[in-house]
Amino acid sequence: MREEDLIHLITAEVVAQLQREGQRQQAVVQGSTIPVALSNRHIHLSQEHVERLFGVGYTLTKLKDLSQPGQYAAKETVRLIGPKGILEDVRVLGPARGTTQIELAIADGFKLGIIPPIRQSGDLQGTPGCYVAGPSGVVELATGLIAALRHIHMAPGDALRFGVQDQELVKVRTKGLRALVFDQVLVRVSPDFCLEMHLDVEEGNAAGLKNGDQVEIVQ
Amino acid sequence: MREEDLIHLITAEVVAQLQREGQRQQAVVQGSTIPVALSNRHIHLSQEHVERLFGVGYTLTKLKDLSQPGQYAAKETVRLIGPKGILEDVRVLGPARGTTQIELAIADGFKLGIIPPIRQSGDLQGTPGCYVAGPSGVVELATGLIAALRHIHMAPGDALRFGVQDQELVKVRTKGLRALVFDQVLVRVSPDFCLEMHLDVEEGNAAGLKNGDQVEIVQ
Repeated sequence: MREEDLIHLITAEVVAQLQREGQRQQAVVQGSTIPVALSNRHIHLSQEHVERLFGVGYTLTKLKDLSQPGQYAAKETVRLIGPKGILEDVRVLGPARGTTQIELAIADGFKLGIIPPIRQSGDLQGTPGCYVAGPSGVVELATGLIAALRHIHMAPGDALRFGVQDQELVKVRTKGLRALVFDQVLVRVSPDFCLEMHLDVEEGNAAGLKNGDQVEIVQ
Repeated sequence: MREEDLIHLITAEVVAQLQREGQRQQAVVQGSTIPVALSNRHIHLSQEHVERLFGVGYTLTKLKDLSQPGQYAAKETVRLIGPKGILEDVRVLGPARGTTQIELAIADGFKLGIIPPIRQSGDLQGTPGCYVAGPSGVVELATGLIAALRHIHMAPGDALRFGVQDQELVKVRTKGLRALVFDQVLVRVSPDFCLEMHLDVEEGNAAGLKNGDQVEIVQ
């Protein structure tokens, strides 16, 4: 057995033992940080809605890979229409999903005239909708408009290292002139994720953060 | 002597004693909260600039009193012009001040193409400027563009009650789904102030706060 495999096994055993004792595990790498990504307003579309907005048989075109594996910013944008205003050039993120979901900042909601509720991605029951317009059609969305609950994506190995679990709420500390501690940050663990904290632009600006800045979980 | 005057004197003596001991005073009213006011982008103008933008001899017209005594939103607005964009209808706050100062959110700065440094009001040395346009003229501002350092206005009596001093930095806790603790919140004490925490719209939205919501200093 290689030395690093041995260390891995020992670490895993220590962690498991501490967890059995019901304690937050203390084996966390001190000073371990998480990179930040700021989300501007965007929309995830179902394939049905892709076709109603952009044409029958249409598929999204990749513009740029995002940091989460398989996710990308599409070339396509849409127009959101609310009772008080319009948001132009709202970026579509791909690939197409099962359900259409719009993620806005609170200020975007004011412009539209619809205040987005703070929700975890996918938790759309009872959320408001709006009109979504593309070059080939308009979709009237009954629900799907949210402000994303701030969260940290991590792989299972990261979760072990930080001593946290999927769906746990943690506190996250930022540094600098606008230093603050975000309470109630959702941890989302999946083998498909890479380590990254997601904030919307208002949250990022309020904390003086830019893409790639590092934050820490408060243990 | 009335009973309330006596209580005031006793309280003041306890506070003074604790401060002499170099401790943060513990006589703070438990659960004592501070109302929040969110600032949208705005400009304070010198009288010279009022006249260059709106005409010789012009004085600002009050639209609405603000919560800080003597301060008001003026009827007048200006246009800010930067290298990347224009901000329309930026509200002038009155009365006229010694020096013109623009307070923007970070997102406003992106639109303008000038990132505002985080500064205390009045601390304008080395800050960027921009063009300011009114109906009667344009001013080229060399400095004066900031994002206001988040702060709490309070009267001397409030400072005594909270056990804080002018220019002290404190932590402030907010509640709700977007609960957080703002670090490095500047305390500003003056007999001309009434108790209020000032945040810009991005900071307020990041914390899920509306005008009049209550926050607490973390002791």
